[in-house]
Order: sequence, then structure tokens, then C-alpha cells
Amino acid sequence: MKALVYRGPGLKALEERPKPVLLKPGDAIVKMVKTTICGTDLHILKGDVPTCAPGRILGHEGVGIVDAVDAGVTAFRPGDRVLISCISACGKCDYCRRGMYSHCTTGGWILGNGIDGTQAEYVRIPHADTSLYPIPPGADEEALVMLSDILPTGFECGVLNGKVAPGSTVAIVGAGPIGLATLLTAQLYSPAQIIVIDLDDNRLAVAQRFGATQTINSKDGNAAEKVKTLTAGIGVDAAIEAVGIPATFLLCQELVAPGGIIANIGVHGQKADLHLERLWSQNIAITTRLVDTVSTPMLLKTVQSNKIDPTRLITHRFALDQILDAYDTFARAAETHALKVIITS
Amino acid sequence: MKALVYRGPGLKALEERPKPVLLKPGDAIVKMVKTTICGTDLHILKGDVPTCAPGRILGHEGVGIVDAVDAGVTAFRPGDRVLISCISACGKCDYCRRGMYSHCTTGGWILGNGIDGTQAEYVRIPHADTSLYPIPPGADEEALVMLSDILPTGFECGVLNGKVAPGSTVAIVGAGPIGLATLLTAQLYSPAQIIVIDLDDNRLAVAQRFGATQTINSKDGNAAEKVKTLTAGIGVDAAIEAVGIPATFLLCQELVAPGGIIANIGVHGQKADLHLERLWSQNIAITTRLVDTVSTPMLLKTVQSNKIDPTRLITHRFALDQILDAYDTFARAAETHALKVIITS
Amino acid sequence: MKALVYRGPGLKALEERPKPVLLKPGDAIVKMVKTTICGTDLHILKGDVPTCAPGRILGHEGVGIVDAVDAGVTAFRPGDRVLISCISACGKCDYCRRGMYSHCTTGGWILGNGIDGTQAEYVRIPHADTSLYPIPPGADEEALVMLSDILPTGFECGVLNGKVAPGSTVAIVGAGPIGLATLLTAQLYSPAQIIVIDLDDNRLAVAQRFGATQTINSKDGNAAEKVKTLTAGIGVDAAIEAVGIPATFLLCQELVAPGGIIANIGVHGQKADLHLERLWSQNIAITTRLVDTVSTPMLLKTVQSNKIDPTRLITHRFALDQILDAYDTFARAAETHALKVIITS
Amino acid sequence: MKALVYRGPGLKALEERPKPVLLKPGDAIVKMVKTTICGTDLHILKGDVPTCAPGRILGHEGVGIVDAVDAGVTAFRPGDRVLISCISACGKCDYCRRGMYSHCTTGGWILGNGIDGTQAEYVRIPHADTSLYPIPPGADEEALVMLSDILPTGFECGVLNGKVAPGSTVAIVGAGPIGLATLLTAQLYSPAQIIVIDLDDNRLAVAQRFGATQTINSKDGNAAEKVKTLTAGIGVDAAIEAVGIPATFLLCQELVAPGGIIANIGVHGQKADLHLERLWSQNIAITTRLVDTVSTPMLLKTVQSNKIDPTRLITHRFALDQILDAYDTFARAAETHALKVIITS
Repeated sequence: MKALVYRGPGLKALEERPKPVLLKPGDAIVKMVKTTICGTDLHILKGDVPTCAPGRILGHEGVGIVDAVDAGVTAFRPGDRVLISCISACGKCDYCRRGMYSHCTTGGWILGNGIDGTQAEYVRIPHADTSLYPIPPGADEEALVMLSDILPTGFECGVLNGKVAPGSTVAIVGAGPIGLATLLTAQLYSPAQIIVIDLDDNRLAVAQRFGATQTINSKDGNAAEKVKTLTAGIGVDAAIEAVGIPATFLLCQELVAPGGIIANIGVHGQKADLHLERLWSQNIAITTRLVDTVSTPMLLKTVQSNKIDPTRLITHRFALDQILDAYDTFARAAETHALKVIITS
Repeated sequence: MKALVYRGPGLKALEERPKPVLLKPGDAIVKMVKTTICGTDLHILKGDVPTCAPGRILGHEGVGIVDAVDAGVTAFRPGDRVLISCISACGKCDYCRRGMYSHCTTGGWILGNGIDGTQAEYVRIPHADTSLYPIPPGADEEALVMLSDILPTGFECGVLNGKVAPGSTVAIVGAGPIGLATLLTAQLYSPAQIIVIDLDDNRLAVAQRFGATQTINSKDGNAAEKVKTLTAGIGVDAAIEAVGIPATFLLCQELVAPGGIIANIGVHGQKADLHLERLWSQNIAITTRLVDTVSTPMLLKTVQSNKIDPTRLITHRFALDQILDAYDTFARAAETHALKVIITS
Repeated sequence: MKALVYRGPGLKALEERPKPVLLKPGDAIVKMVKTTICGTDLHILKGDVPTCAPGRILGHEGVGIVDAVDAGVTAFRPGDRVLISCISACGKCDYCRRGMYSHCTTGGWILGNGIDGTQAEYVRIPHADTSLYPIPPGADEEALVMLSDILPTGFECGVLNGKVAPGSTVAIVGAGPIGLATLLTAQLYSPAQIIVIDLDDNRLAVAQRFGATQTINSKDGNAAEKVKTLTAGIGVDAAIEAVGIPATFLLCQELVAPGGIIANIGVHGQKADLHLERLWSQNIAITTRLVDTVSTPMLLKTVQSNKIDPTRLITHRFALDQILDAYDTFARAAETHALKVIITS
Repeated sequence: MKALVYRGPGLKALEERPKPVLLKPGDAIVKMVKTTICGTDLHILKGDVPTCAPGRILGHEGVGIVDAVDAGVTAFRPGDRVLISCISACGKCDYCRRGMYSHCTTGGWILGNGIDGTQAEYVRIPHADTSLYPIPPGADEEALVMLSDILPTGFECGVLNGKVAPGSTVAIVGAGPIGLATLLTAQLYSPAQIIVIDLDDNRLAVAQRFGATQTINSKDGNAAEKVKTLTAGIGVDAAIEAVGIPATFLLCQELVAPGGIIANIGVHGQKADLHLERLWSQNIAITTRLVDTVSTPMLLKTVQSNKIDPTRLITHRFALDQILDAYDTFARAAETHALKVIITS
């Protein structure tokens, strides 16, 4: 079968690989229908993710059709159309029982990282009963590709951890795909203000269309001051970090109101300064989270009932044969205005 | 009347001052019976608290007898015995309605800071109805002095923010008075382990007597490793910072388990490193808090029903005339083994 | 001044009464601008509310202008435009500190019940600082009249107690004003389904326009069965009772899914059967609540940010001189299709 | 093998039955070491549990040694010592993912009910990975038998649902084994008062020894009045029903304070009156629950750390051969003073 393979820092190739087979109790083989590319895939290609070795098929998102299941799989049969979670969860370990699937002792984020992933014609899914979701009849499958990772990530790490609530004030720092997914899902809770901050005017224009109440281009360094002006001098109830660098994490510390929350989504590569000399008395919380995808069933219902339209994140479509072009388009997002790209097998 | 007055960095004096008078609606004048000295008073004396100007009477803790009340005070009358909260709360502003008395727009921590405090024969208490608590008949008043600040601080900033729960594992970094108050109040929730970490063997011995399940002297730099050994390699559910320096905050980052909480109590004078490059995916929370004293009524009930004995924190007793000696004893705690000192008028 | 006075069961009159005066610390006198009539006012007129004695001026809702304040009032001055809460709260007692203003030991629902109310040219408001809310400049004051009682009642007793959440399924039993207020505020949380049940097709048509995903006329006695069909046989996560009779409370017991909540809003005049022989093992909760109006600031923000439009509940408008007509129109709602009537001074 | 078999209403026998075998993916066979008898077993024998057909081996509690496992079982191997949960949970269905194991679509309370149970030499355990718990080395296995059902039942349905908290006031209505288990586990949260109410003075004496702060014999019909006297006229924060008849549920309605919770544990055979005409405005909650046993790992930790001693519930011990005597002793508890009986294979 065809598969997109990581070949070491800076290197990738569309290769022929053997079709995966059932290896362990609970495994399923899924024939891919649609997948996508994540910012994390670009991190891997930069060599920043040491758990991902050269030779690995990339990809941890997508929808497909069950091709084969191990005898221990009880919830799915060949022919079932399924949504693949980016997180594999055994459902049995202490972490899984607490809903912290991201830290499953035999799962977590392993697809397209520790084991071969979804940017291929077929993929092996461990713990299939608790890592796949049935696709409701008539569902828009491209919309559901957004439920593999980006929507639950924005929702769990940003919106839930940030305790976004009716009437509250929110700032989202970073208007890339993950910031925009946060923006879409934050509106499920009807906050009074969602201020989106970025350096790219195009992305801010998209944010405005997606429901931001105000947008701020932070290139002049006055974003904190502007947010204070927009919030009666108090700051925001939830400052959501969706970039992953010290400067944006610092900005969140300046934006957050007393009693507020800094909800980190960004994947950080280095330490950041925490200004405890000011924040110790501010009754704030800072949260971090690798997405658990426990909210996937809830998000499926909101998509099915038209409370949210994730297809707004999709800007480009490619065939699996063109996946190298898809990577190029996604990597040059500032120029191509790409958000999420759909790759169809 | 006699009063302990801050005279600028390094300077204090026991002086004669006029008895305070009712100034604003809701004020009460309280004749002090017993007060104590807080670590924060020492911070002021070092010149570290710019909101506290020379000439200020120090002290924000104590019990007393109501001497006079403004017409707007409805809950107290002269002669009532009262517990004084270290936090003044109007009960009306947005913060007070959310239970965040620490940020009351006309209160917060002002006693012995922005206005004259309790280390005197009399004190003026603003917002008396919501800043004083009636002392139940027969209560041990020395025990209640511990409810002005230190017990709610340990309980709210450490135990509640740390979500200490039956069966959970807790580390308390710092076995000074505030760490020990945290240790006492944490036991209200029956955690399985409370590991106390400090550099002073005497304080660790006290911690052991007060209910620590294990103690660690961190001077060899291996505290994190030892905690991992005591917790099956996982770390603790709640790492409670009760010192206020970058090194102990860093230690907490090493102790906390995935899904756990770092609850900061310490008053920090400088920024600290936050290792987001490791913690971004660990599903942790970091909390900060200036005590709100919303838990005072609950803590009063636990003291009255003998679930907790705060008098264990009291090591020395002085008359108000001897308050300079009391300061000396409290400041040289490593030698004197002082925890809390009671000063009786 | 003119005032609508309760004269005993079945009797009311528009009378001349003396203007109220400041009586207690914390009082304010408010010149009424707009008020409305509540279903509870009709209960009083039937003689069902023994705490309300003949001679009482009715009304517990409205907006007005502060006319005079006692010296203890710090948040308002004469001339301020204010929203009047139906619940008077001292902000000091144990209940108020827990946010349970409805049980304030010197307040609660007293306006137009234990003390004279708002259906008059002036009203005395006790505990003004914590029972009035400033009207933001430019706000639609008719919309804000809905925030005195009906919106917080639907929101707190129905939506918050029912834990309505994104993706959840909700049934509202009763499409009168309070059921419709629940319907409007439930949408702040983006549930997947809101099924509204009533006997009146007109009200169901209104519910459909207000956002119900399905409506059921329960006159054929098959409502429970129909709800099961609409919810894959499971029932609803939240069954909200907005009528107040045994039959509708019974229906809620049939609608609720395992793990769900029955949130009672209705004012009941008699006991109801609770089928514990079936429900004991269903992991449900039943909640009751007299509105606390703690959510008023949050709701104000959602109205100001256009997340909700409470003016949709307003069907008729009258001058204070015509208040007897207003009562007649409101009482004959089945014919007049009245929901909320605005009465302007 | 020997097994205690239900033979229809009023009939039971100790019979020879074939050893169970692995039937489905995820099954384990466990050799029983110790089991016990539950009040529910007596209900079955009265013919009150229609899901339990004659011929069924009874029992849903105990500890044992794994004898055989299906290939799909990953957490246990033959020879492992295990605690058996009374609730079988697949860990995969919607209910299990929400922690509501009691309503597992292929599990729940089936042991000794829909399938053969633990009062035998061997038992088949479905969904073994998520229905068994490893016994820590050195643990007291008799103590752990109490973790199969009675302790999590008292803790989840009574203490957690009742939101027992430090300083709160609790009434437990019913001092049978389940009420006493509630009493033991309530103390993990350090409430100020735990008032235990029963008709049997012996059981009340046991309650006193187990930590009740006050006991009331309710035979004179004045229990509600006495509780009011003990709680400053307010009632209790949590009224826990541990009997299962209309009269005790009614008593709870009289005991509960405004803002409080009635947590039902009792298995009810008929409907009860709910006095909504009084309670609609009291801001209370009523909860029901079939135990989920999600708290088993937490309770194991509290037992292992000596925060609770469940062996205090054990009054009698029998060999499996004597199980008919054990039933007799347990059924005549008023005379024998039996609480829990241990049956050793």
C-alpha cells in the first residue's frame, strides 16, 4: 500500500509498504478514507519529536472503514465506518479510568509516532473498542476528520480547561488551526467576548469570520494593553495559549484577570518565565494538557446537531497520491492560507 | 494605647498611639485580646511590602471584644467576642460575591498593611459584618487566633486548591508554620500519604508528630528522587509549595504526577522557571492564591468539633508589652523552634 | 403615589398610597420606570401565598431610578438607573455567603410579599447594595425587566441545576413564560436537543420559534413514549419541570435517562409521587430551588453581548394606570397569548 | 464444586455444581477465598428480585485467586490474588466511560443475579480487566471483602452523593451494615456531626463506637425534632437514607436543611411521597444511585493507609460448608447482632 513515511529530520517520502496486520488483542485494521496533516507532523519532520523514529508512517487523524478486527473487539465489525481518535486508550488502566486517555499506559499519542499512522491506505488501531467511534449515518465525513484531534484539542485543553462560560471573557493567543478550533468550540458556551490575538492579519480576518468579538495584531507589542482596554482594565477570565513559545505564554500572564485561568494548548520546546512575584496573589490557575479525546462523543453530538461546523477549518483537498503537495501547502500556510487540508485515499 | 509600629526597613517600635475611632459605614472598633505575628510581618520589616508605609501599626490576626460599631453594622454589638479575619471583605463587590474576598475592591489584605493593624490595644475593622466572626461560647481563643490567617491560608491555597482527597498523595514543600498548617488541614480529607520536605530536621520532626506519613530532608538535592520512590515512580497528586523561592517551586515541578496539581502558597519575590517543554503534555494545573478566608466558618466548625487542633502550632506566649521579644523569638525560629507566638493584651 | 394593592383572595385595586421612605440601614427608594406581572402574583391573588397579607403592594420585578439612599449604601446614588432583583440579599448571612440569596435570613423573596413591591410609582429596596444592579449605558431596559426574576429563575433552577451542557438532551415540561425563559437560557450551553412539552399548541409554536428542536403536545398522554423515540430509547439528560403539578413531575420521572437530572422549577401546591421503586437504581438527581439571582451579573453580560434576547418574551405593554387591564391580559394568557407584559410608570 | 443456589422464593440449597468455564472474551475464572452475604441476597430469597431466576448461584462479593483467563485479559494472570467488584464493567460503553459502571450495557449488577455468583468454590467474572482489582501484598483480605460492595455503596451513594465535607452535618437514617459502612466512610471527610438514627439500640451502640457524634432511637417518632435541636434548628447538610422504605425517606425530607442533599442508598420496593409543596423552594437535591464501584481504587488506598478499618463490620465467620448457618445468622441480625459474615472456602 502507499504510505507517507518519515525518513529523518527534513525527509519524507511517499512509499510502498505492506498492509498492516492484526498484532494484539483488541486490534483493528482500518482502510483509510480521509486523513489530514497536523502541526505536530511538521514538528516530527523538523526532528523535534524523539519518540518518532525514521521509517515511521505519519498521521494520527482520519476516518475510514473497518477492514478486520481481532476476536477481542466487540464494538466494531468489518465494514463499519469509523472516526479514528488521535489518542489510543486501553480503557482499563488507572489513567484511562480517570478519563486521562492521553497517559494510557499502553496507548496515548502513539499513532504516527510510536507506531505507524494514518497517512496510508490502511492503519492498525490498537485498543480499537475505545479508540474508534462509529460514524453516524449521513454524517459529513470531512467534518469528522476534524474530530480526530484538532477539535477535541481546542475544546479540552483550551475551552474546558479554561472554564469558558456564558458571559465570560476569553483571549485566544494564536489564530492558527488550533486557535481557530478553540474559537469555534468556545462558542458552545456563549462567552461575552472572545478576543483573538495573532501576528497575521489574514488569520485574524478568518478569526473575525469564525466568531471572534475582537481581534488584535500583536506585532506592535501592545496586545496586553489593548486587551485591558477591552475588558474594563481587568483582563480576561481565560487566556488560552495556542502557540507554544515563551513570548505568548508571557503575554497570557499579562492578560489574565485575578481569579482567571491560563489554559495552555501550545507544544513548548523550552522553558518559560513564570512571574510568580506578581501572580502568587492573583488567584489564578495555569493548566496544561495533552488532549485526552474524552470529549469526542460530546463533540460528535454538537456537530450532528449543527451547533458547530468544523468544515470551516478545511481549506484544501488532495488525493493520497498528492500528499507531498498537501504537506507543502500546509507548511507554507502564511502564503497559501491553509488551515486544514483533507487527503482522500 | 500601645501599638507595634513599623518605622521603615529594619525598624519597629512599641509606641503610644491614639485609640482608633469609627471612620466609615460598617466599621467596628475591637479591643484586642490576643494577636500573633505572621511571616508577612517580617517581610514588611525587611522593606519588601511597598504598600505598607512607615508609621503603620502591624498585625492582621487575632481575637478581641467589640468596643464600638457604626450604625450600619448589624451582626455585632459591643461586648461580642470576635475572631478577626486577616482579609477585610465588603461582601458586595464582584470579587466578594464570587468568594474572592482577597481581591475585594475596598478591602483584601489591608489590616496592618494599608491601614493600622492588630498588634495594638485596639483596632479599627472595616466591613465588620463580613470581616469578623462570632466566637462560640466556650471556644479556645488561642486556637481561634490560628483561624485569622494561617489555617485558612494553608487550607485554601494548599489543601483546597490542591484538591487533596481521600487516598491521594500529597507533598508539602516547606515545614514552616504555613506548611504545618497545611499539614494539619490536609488531614481533614484523609489522603493516603503526606510527604513533608524541608531543610530543618527539627521542623521535620514536628511534621512527623503532626501527621506527616514521611519526611524528607532536601539538603542533599535528592528530594524529587525520594518522592518518586515513595510513590511508585509516579509523583504526587498535589505538590504544595509553602516556601516562596524559585528552587522550591522547581522542586514541585519535579514532584507532581501527570494529572496532578502544584498549589502555590509561598509569597514569591522573583520569577521562576516553568518547564513547559516537559509539562505541556502532563495535564497538570498550577494554582496561586492570596487567602480569601471564605473557609473560616467551615474551619471554625472543624475546630469546634475537635477534628483539628490548631493550638499545636503555638510554641510561645508573650504579653503585648513584650512584643519586641516576641518578634525576636519568631524571627530566630531556627534557634528558638518557634512556630506561632501568642501575644496577649 | 399609585400602587396595585392586594385586597385578599380574588381582590386587587389600583390605589393611592404614600411614597415609601428609608426605614433601615442599607435601604434605597427607587422610582419605578418599568415593571411586569409574574405568575406568582396570580398565585397571591388566588390566596395561595399566606406570607402575603391583604394591603400589600404587589410586584417583585422591574427597573427604575434611585431616588434616595441610606448612608450605609455605597454602590448607588440618586439618579442611578437600576435593575431590581426579585430576591433581596443582605450579602452577610451564612446563606448569602454561600450564594443562596433566596434564603437570606433578612431577605429572600420579600418584595411584593412580606413588604411592599414594585407595581407602584416608588418602592423601598432593602439591602440595596446587594439587591440592585446598575444598568449599563445604552441597555434595553425592557429586556432587563426580564432579568429581575424570569430569566434567572429559568437559568438557575432549570439550566444550571439541570447541568445543561454542549451535546446534551433536554426536555422542558411546560411552555409558559418560565418554560420559555428556560428554553432561551438553555441555548447558552448548546445542547443537542431541547424538546418542549405542553398542552397548548400556540405555546409550542412559540417554543419552536424560540429554539426548541422538537415539540410535543402531551394531551394524548404519550409524551414519555415520544421522548423515548426521540432519544434512542434512553430518555433525556435533563428533564426540567416548569409547571408545578404532580402530573408533570411524574412525567419528568418517565423522561429522565439513567444518570440524568430532574430540575424542578414549578411552584407546587401539593405532594407528588416519587417512584423510588424504579428510580433508586437509576443514578438520578432531583433538584429544587427558589431562584437566588446569583446569576444576574452573568445574564446581564449575555444580554449585553447579544447572546440572548429576552425581549422575545414580551407580548404586551401597558401604562401603570392600565395595570388592571394588564393583569386581565396576563391572566387570560391562553386567549391573549400573553407571555410577559411590560407596565411603564 | 459446592455452591449456594437460589431455588425460588424462600428456598436455597448448598449444591454440587460444575466448575465454571471461560465463555466470552475478557472472562476470568476465580477460585474463591472469601465471600460474604449481602442484604440483597435476602431480597432475592424473598422473591423480590425478578432478574434472578431459580437455579442461580448467589453472591456478588469476595476475594479470590485467578484460576484462568481468556486471551483478551491483559491485567491479570492465573495465581493473582484479586478483589471482585459486585459490578461488572466493560470499560467501553457510554455508561462505563462516564464512570457509571452500574449501567454498563453488558454488565452492571449481574453477579449472583443474571449470572452465577461468588458463594461457590469458583466463579466466572466477565470483563475481568475492569471488574477485578489486584490485592496489594500484605493486605488483610477480610477487610477487602468489604470493598466488593458495602463500602463503595455507602461511600458513593451516601458520602459522595451527599457531598459530605469538613465541618458539615450529616444524618444517617438506618444503622444496618450499609448505614454503618456509610458512617465509616463519611469520616474520611471530617464532618462536624454524624447523627445516626435507627430503631435498634444495639445498632445505635455500634454506631456510637464507629464514630457517630450522636444517635437517636426513632421509635418515639420525634427523630426530626431531635435532629433540629442538635443542628440549631436548621437540619442537616446531608440526610442519608439507608433503609429503603417510604417512612425513612419521609424522615429525610424532614431532616434536610435548605441547600442540603437527601442521598438515597436504600433499595425501595414501592413509591414514596415527595413533599414538593414544601421542598420546591428549599434548594435541595435528592440523589439515587446503584453503586458504580468507581471509588474502589480510592477506597483501597484509604484501607491500605489505615484511614479506615472495614474489618469492624465483620461479626461472624463461617466455612463455605456452613453457609446455610451463615445465612441464618445474617437473616436474624436483630438477635445475633450480625453485621457482615465472612465465608471462607
